[in-house]
Amino acid sequence: MLKIALGQMEVIPGHPDKNMEKILSMTEDARSQQADIVIFPEMAIPGYFLGDTWEQPAFLQDCEECGQKVIEASQGIIIMFGNIAVDWKKKNNDGRVRKYNAFFTAKNGKLIYPDSMPYPFVIKTLMPNYREFDDTRHFFSLQKLSRELGTTPDQLISPVTLKIKDRRYRVGCLLCEDGWGDDYELTPLGILKHQRSIDFFVNISSSPYTLGKNDKRHRVFGAQAKDTHASLFYINNVGLQNNGKTIYTFDGLSTVYNTEGQVAACCQEYKEELAVVDLEHLGELPPVTFPDEPPIAHIYHALAYGIHHFLENIHMKKVVIGISGGIDSAVAAALYNRVIGPENLLLVNMPSVYNSETTKGLSQKLAENLGCHYAIIPIQESVEHTIRQLESTPIEFLREHTESHLEVSSFVAENIQARDRSARILAGAAAAFGGGFTCNANKAETTVGYSTLYGDQSGFLAALADLWKYQVYELAHYLNDAVYQREVIPQGIIDIVPSAELSENQNVDEGKGDPIKYPYHDHLFRSFVERWQKATPQDILSWYSEGVLEEKIGCEPGLAGKYFPTPADFIADLERWWNLFTGMAIAKRIQAPPILAVSRRAFGFDHREAQNGPYYTRRYKELKEKLLK
Amino acid sequence: MLKIALGQMEVIPGHPDKNMEKILSMTEDARSQQADIVIFPEMAIPGYFLGDTWEQPAFLQDCEECGQKVIEASQGIIIMFGNIAVDWKKKNNDGRVRKYNAFFTAKNGKLIYPDSMPYPFVIKTLMPNYREFDDTRHFFSLQKLSRELGTTPDQLISPVTLKIKDRRYRVGCLLCEDGWGDDYELTPLGILKHQRSIDFFVNISSSPYTLGKNDKRHRVFGAQAKDTHASLFYINNVGLQNNGKTIYTFDGLSTVYNTEGQVAACCQEYKEELAVVDLEHLGELPPVTFPDEPPIAHIYHALAYGIHHFLENIHMKKVVIGISGGIDSAVAAALYNRVIGPENLLLVNMPSVYNSETTKGLSQKLAENLGCHYAIIPIQESVEHTIRQLESTPIEFLREHTESHLEVSSFVAENIQARDRSARILAGAAAAFGGGFTCNANKAETTVGYSTLYGDQSGFLAALADLWKYQVYELAHYLNDAVYQREVIPQGIIDIVPSAELSENQNVDEGKGDPIKYPYHDHLFRSFVERWQKATPQDILSWYSEGVLEEKIGCEPGLAGKYFPTPADFIADLERWWNLFTGMAIAKRIQAPPILAVSRRAFGFDHREAQNGPYYTRRYKELKEKLLK
Repeated sequence: MLKIALGQMEVIPGHPDKNMEKILSMTEDARSQQADIVIFPEMAIPGYFLGDTWEQPAFLQDCEECGQKVIEASQGIIIMFGNIAVDWKKKNNDGRVRKYNAFFTAKNGKLIYPDSMPYPFVIKTLMPNYREFDDTRHFFSLQKLSRELGTTPDQLISPVTLKIKDRRYRVGCLLCEDGWGDDYELTPLGILKHQRSIDFFVNISSSPYTLGKNDKRHRVFGAQAKDTHASLFYINNVGLQNNGKTIYTFDGLSTVYNTEGQVAACCQEYKEELAVVDLEHLGELPPVTFPDEPPIAHIYHALAYGIHHFLENIHMKKVVIGISGGIDSAVAAALYNRVIGPENLLLVNMPSVYNSETTKGLSQKLAENLGCHYAIIPIQESVEHTIRQLESTPIEFLREHTESHLEVSSFVAENIQARDRSARILAGAAAAFGGGFTCNANKAETTVGYSTLYGDQSGFLAALADLWKYQVYELAHYLNDAVYQREVIPQGIIDIVPSAELSENQNVDEGKGDPIKYPYHDHLFRSFVERWQKATPQDILSWYSEGVLEEKIGCEPGLAGKYFPTPADFIADLERWWNLFTGMAIAKRIQAPPILAVSRRAFGFDHREAQNGPYYTRRYKELKEKLLK
Repeated sequence: MLKIALGQMEVIPGHPDKNMEKILSMTEDARSQQADIVIFPEMAIPGYFLGDTWEQPAFLQDCEECGQKVIEASQGIIIMFGNIAVDWKKKNNDGRVRKYNAFFTAKNGKLIYPDSMPYPFVIKTLMPNYREFDDTRHFFSLQKLSRELGTTPDQLISPVTLKIKDRRYRVGCLLCEDGWGDDYELTPLGILKHQRSIDFFVNISSSPYTLGKNDKRHRVFGAQAKDTHASLFYINNVGLQNNGKTIYTFDGLSTVYNTEGQVAACCQEYKEELAVVDLEHLGELPPVTFPDEPPIAHIYHALAYGIHHFLENIHMKKVVIGISGGIDSAVAAALYNRVIGPENLLLVNMPSVYNSETTKGLSQKLAENLGCHYAIIPIQESVEHTIRQLESTPIEFLREHTESHLEVSSFVAENIQARDRSARILAGAAAAFGGGFTCNANKAETTVGYSTLYGDQSGFLAALADLWKYQVYELAHYLNDAVYQREVIPQGIIDIVPSAELSENQNVDEGKGDPIKYPYHDHLFRSFVERWQKATPQDILSWYSEGVLEEKIGCEPGLAGKYFPTPADFIADLERWWNLFTGMAIAKRIQAPPILAVSRRAFGFDHREAQNGPYYTRRYKELKEKLLK
């Protein structure tokens, strides 16, 4: 009997003291359950997403000292855990002190050396350096170390041998990406497998949630366990970590894969949990099956958990949401209401002359359904004052001793309205209410910057900005049907045409609204952002000319032809949005609030960008010319 | 005679078509001057800072095609240039197509293979992955390639042999960081040096300006030339490139180092230039000496060039600046006035009841000195309307059927004033004036978030946000003395106490002002941000207790004792700012405008950070306890 405890802890990034305490208390718990081994996630002490905090020697020293406390606590139990390992005598390529993303194994107060390693820890070999990951910026890889030592990774990668109750277990220790390395020059798992027999594998991870990731993991890790005839223990943390602009939930779901590749045990989603299993009897456990939930259910869990923890992290209890009677703000309201309760939520409707009775009524209805705080604060008087003040103030040109006046166009007036709502009313109301106000932008709007800076683009968090519009609608249904199990978001809000209601041209009662045609543009924009090989107008136009566009971008067949009768219309639309996506929208995203990530490509640190202006390739221009002939 | 032309071009990031045209026209120019070789910078075709544009296959293909045009243009002249090289049959570690940061040499329409390379180009070996650099995210290094090929970098790194007029020249080709690799496992220059005799070195770079970098480069590269007995040609681009949040100027200053390590020739700063030199007669050129300018002169050049180009890039001609009568906005006004001219500049003074006659008068005087457009747009009426509206609107709690009212505290009212100025007046005035408005925050304010979000924190560009307050003062003097050569910034603005004038507590006429004591805090904050090994409260407190604080952080001796009579005062101050720097200020920086970088550590992409809240190490707490006993 070998009892192994999976320590699915919440890791609090940047707070080694708290993480150490958590490890110590969960170790006590594991000991009281007679566990032989307790395993904690990758970077369980420092946390994983810390920006450049890794450049503070005092922080590194603190992590080492906290790690030492954990090592000392390993009396009578083996503790496996992730931490930063520092070699103060060596340097990283940037001239700073040498740092490894390391996997420690402690027993009776001492560290156990892997069989062929010069350090008493396993070093992460494969370093993710894509999406939100910056491992290579801070951590020295095993490949570099092997070059420095004049050897090869194959000679260093080796199991950790544990002696427990007179038996020896050879453990294959991996850190997160080490188990995912399809496209690297080497695979640690392959090396371990080919070396000598491994009794079981342990993959300690700090793996952020993204939609669909877990299904893939079960396939990949299950196959590894089956292929190597060794059980695999995957230990992931829960919690919330961020890179500034982009915020990630960590869903836990630590899993034991048996030698058949089945899920023998699995911790809960987004919950701290110590799960104890017996290695020798894993085959006797009935394989775990997962409830067949739709993707939007997972998105809801991620958003609710993310909002809850983000508010907790920034010590914010109360939230103000500007509601327009449209779908985005309504979904935000229903979501926050669930997380913080109606007593902490203030919805504010801010009508101007352009807001219809329809949307004003729907706003009121939504607030009543939620039972939260509600206020109507009109903007008309203030907006008129601003326009009057701007137009009536003399502008002196001092060099020439002449005078002029500014003129406020209707477009400028639209943005004045949006800023009046957010920067004047919501920001003031939120401060007075004792909280923050939200940004309700969705991902389609965020892609093309369909928003006003310091207006609806602002807020303390953009919780829906990684959801396409169709996902916002799905979430509305899910909130009504599954979460509240009653119609909190009025059907009228789901049915109404999306509109900013900033001018007569956006009159919802006349069916007028946003220029974004979501059933098509959601998918077009997604191809710009989320495809692993990103699409550009060149790709879009060649798919269009080959008649495979809808299939390629994943929207309803025939939609392009329906919206754009001629190639000229199609091209004008394509260029309009590409110009915005790679132009003004970047300027807006630079100043946008943090985004809660759920997709496989969220804006912010996950999708790095430069304000370089739109570009069209030579092939695009040729194709365009041909189509317009 | 071997005539070599240094093609110090402006590289426009993300616009291969324009860069190709520039290379072709400068090549024509070089040919007409009978040059044998013309050399262009690293990544001369795509540009260097492109965010994740590298993930667009169509863009990569376009760069390849533009490169092909350059290769075809090499009839009768050798063209050396940087471009992205794509191996469409192989993959990067992220599963995307294989990309190299490459150095091409073309002659008579064909590429020349380096002596021992499987590709017809040199591959960048050392990949910077610190500060603003993300090379490893996108480019496959020579080390990885050598591992893949089962060989070593030493076997691949080799000179490019050129046959010119019946002579053979062995050229050591380097890409930027390849010449800087103190802390890497290998140095390409060392390998080339030890291999076989090199006739001359070429280092093509895309090297952003930072204060002090050029002095260091002359030392390092001069020593390389002397040490290897080979001249070294350093070709850098000019222009502006950005990573979204952080904007870099590229100062050119392409340099020829002779075999004595002296500067034999040097292109101008921030100017496109084709400089032709004769390799065989470099020793006869008198060594170049550089004018002994103070650091602030270099900073001024970088800022003026950066602002000019940034405005050009975003197609903005006119600028609005809110001026308070304080130093930051005055320096911004004088700076922009110089770049865009008084006819394109509108200064707006926005007094409330808290603004003194002193600062109002100084604002007027500044505008008169500049001769630009000027307007006074008071905020009092609007601010009072906002406070009244927020306080008088009933807030219904719908679940309980109760009603309440918001209360606006004096702190909340301060922020309402700041937002009224920026988001209401400046944003509206800028749009009506046909331009943008500036953020005038300095680096000390930016460090601790001493600003209001959607208020003075906002704007299209934060041109001074990488300057400490003392540098803002230096720049004020430089503008008056050297740039305008008259007192455009009134002495009163230089002399007045820095103050936000948002309440009675900030009355400048009573000498009250900001809580930041710049002569000390400038340096304290710099130790948090700019030290290569970042300082934290643990370091600060131990230096304080050892009596070496001022020396360590570089401020005037005795200053800490002057401001903080007791350890308790000192610690309270330290924790106040550390809490802000690692707390609220991060939230503000996430939504801050782009910053023009001049220092060796600018906020934004150069200084990555996560919203994780303040942290104090165990050793800090022990030290604090000891000091407070």
